Amino acid sequence: MYRYNKNTVLIMIYDLIIIGAGPAGLAAALDAKYLKLKTLVLDAGVAGGALSQSYPWKGVDSYLGFNNMTGKEVAEKIADHVKSSGADIHEMEEVTDIEGTGPFIVKTEKAEYQANAVIVATGIRGVPRKLSVPGEQLEGVDNQVQDPDKYRGMRVLVVGGGDSAADSAIGLYEAGASVWLAHRRDELRATDENREKLEESKITLLWNTEISSINGDGKVESVSLVNNQTGEKSRLQIDSVILCIGSAPANNCIQSIGVKTENVCIKVDENGMTNIPGIFAAGDIVSKIKRILQALATGEKATYSAYKYIKNPYWK
Amino acid sequence: MYRYNKNTVLIMIYDLIIIGAGPAGLAAALDAKYLKLKTLVLDAGVAGGALSQSYPWKGVDSYLGFNNMTGKEVAEKIADHVKSSGADIHEMEEVTDIEGTGPFIVKTEKAEYQANAVIVATGIRGVPRKLSVPGEQLEGVDNQVQDPDKYRGMRVLVVGGGDSAADSAIGLYEAGASVWLAHRRDELRATDENREKLEESKITLLWNTEISSINGDGKVESVSLVNNQTGEKSRLQIDSVILCIGSAPANNCIQSIGVKTENVCIKVDENGMTNIPGIFAAGDIVSKIKRILQALATGEKATYSAYKYIKNPYWK
Repeated sequence: MYRYNKNTVLIMIYDLIIIGAGPAGLAAALDAKYLKLKTLVLDAGVAGGALSQSYPWKGVDSYLGFNNMTGKEVAEKIADHVKSSGADIHEMEEVTDIEGTGPFIVKTEKAEYQANAVIVATGIRGVPRKLSVPGEQLEGVDNQVQDPDKYRGMRVLVVGGGDSAADSAIGLYEAGASVWLAHRRDELRATDENREKLEESKITLLWNTEISSINGDGKVESVSLVNNQTGEKSRLQIDSVILCIGSAPANNCIQSIGVKTENVCIKVDENGMTNIPGIFAAGDIVSKIKRILQALATGEKATYSAYKYIKNPYWK
Repeated sequence: MYRYNKNTVLIMIYDLIIIGAGPAGLAAALDAKYLKLKTLVLDAGVAGGALSQSYPWKGVDSYLGFNNMTGKEVAEKIADHVKSSGADIHEMEEVTDIEGTGPFIVKTEKAEYQANAVIVATGIRGVPRKLSVPGEQLEGVDNQVQDPDKYRGMRVLVVGGGDSAADSAIGLYEAGASVWLAHRRDELRATDENREKLEESKITLLWNTEISSINGDGKVESVSLVNNQTGEKSRLQIDSVILCIGSAPANNCIQSIGVKTENVCIKVDENGMTNIPGIFAAGDIVSKIKRILQALATGEKATYSAYKYIKNPYWK
């Protein structure tokens, strides 16, 4: 189905539009197919989401039934499943705005679409946080490790205290880099498994350590460090800096329509619905536990809720 | 680790005991391994749960990444994944009681175990509901279809109005049985896909119809029906009756310790914890939407919450 908008532009009409084709969006799309909702999935990148982009090389730990597979392999497998179900997925098409009060108009750079319900599953990897110190723009400063093997033989400083930082440091170390891990606290917020790996490794842990500047001429050459307990200053010769200090979501597309957020998350009720009736959210953007199974379940729940919202079955 | 109880019986000591090895219990076990909790999984049957038992022949619809697989195949795959991770799974060992206030003593017919936390993931397929009409004990009356092919050429009445009833009726019809589906209401609580399949089939739908008795000499020969709108009575010659009218959970093992239930579900907070600190629940027994992805996610969440409960990390 389609209709013309006021500027007589042809727009496609859907029951449901899912924004984001990561695990949450793909699970939502598969259930939408099962529930026979006419559905469009839009993603600014490729289907598979952060799984394929941020940890292409890292094993997926606890996706039941997926044993010894990398993030990239899992991403491809789940994307293929949904594509083979006949779902309509537009990759490389970023949503720029959502308008209306139901039906909604979802605008991208390329087109606009109409839907009775929308599921926002854009993840929280929108915009990596910055340290806001001098030198952060230098070549060699990055927010993620795309290919650890490229760092073999290099001196790398990883900054952060969570599992992203731990994963990156361990991945780089195992690939043959000399690795320092700087954290502003004196304990990591990481799994026991990662803590043990770090202890067993030759990664140098710099506790209570903050970065005051990144130095170099075009390219990173050193970092200036300060111990936030003793005030002691030091300088470390380094080839690369990986900042794993979290990220803020790129929620631009939902801000103008007034979806309520809290910190980096969208607030939803127990059915996955936001403060705006007909707009649902799923995945890392709503989950306290940022893991695949939570993403899948919140995606499925959002579709069920959207189905009830659209179809209003007697048993809802 | 182990200790002796007051009767000097040797008992094994765990961080976590998971009761039930269906999708929820297996997901919980995989995460427990990842979080390095010493864990025991106990199941009255075999690992895989209702997936392998109730729908061995039916395809799994929306387990993202599992395409064109039967319930039995998925059950085997996820059970193998957890077994290969080295998890301690005791099959065919039913839990009979839980005692204590933390640590807890979990008793089975074979042994007793101690754990700091317990996850109840026993599902809701404990005890199938009965019609409570004469003849329900006759041979040929069953609660599920184990193998549709065995019904080829037979006349079968399926009773119920949900997807279990619809799935069973469709499975039997496709296997070559003559099928009637009786429901006490005038509409099914089933997916659109199942409704369409029923409409396209030659299954006879008996609306507003209740069973007043099942008749036969040792074995089912007919059923007596009554239309609850018109009062009209009828009799249907039949070889088999499949009752798909829901089930009540076998919560015996948790009743004595005082876990609060509501209808067929265990009440849990947003972290999956029951009213008893240290006892968590997951899967169909807590989920409003009874589907695999919800089971996986609630299993994972329960383990994360149990981990925090046991280890009390600073970041919890």
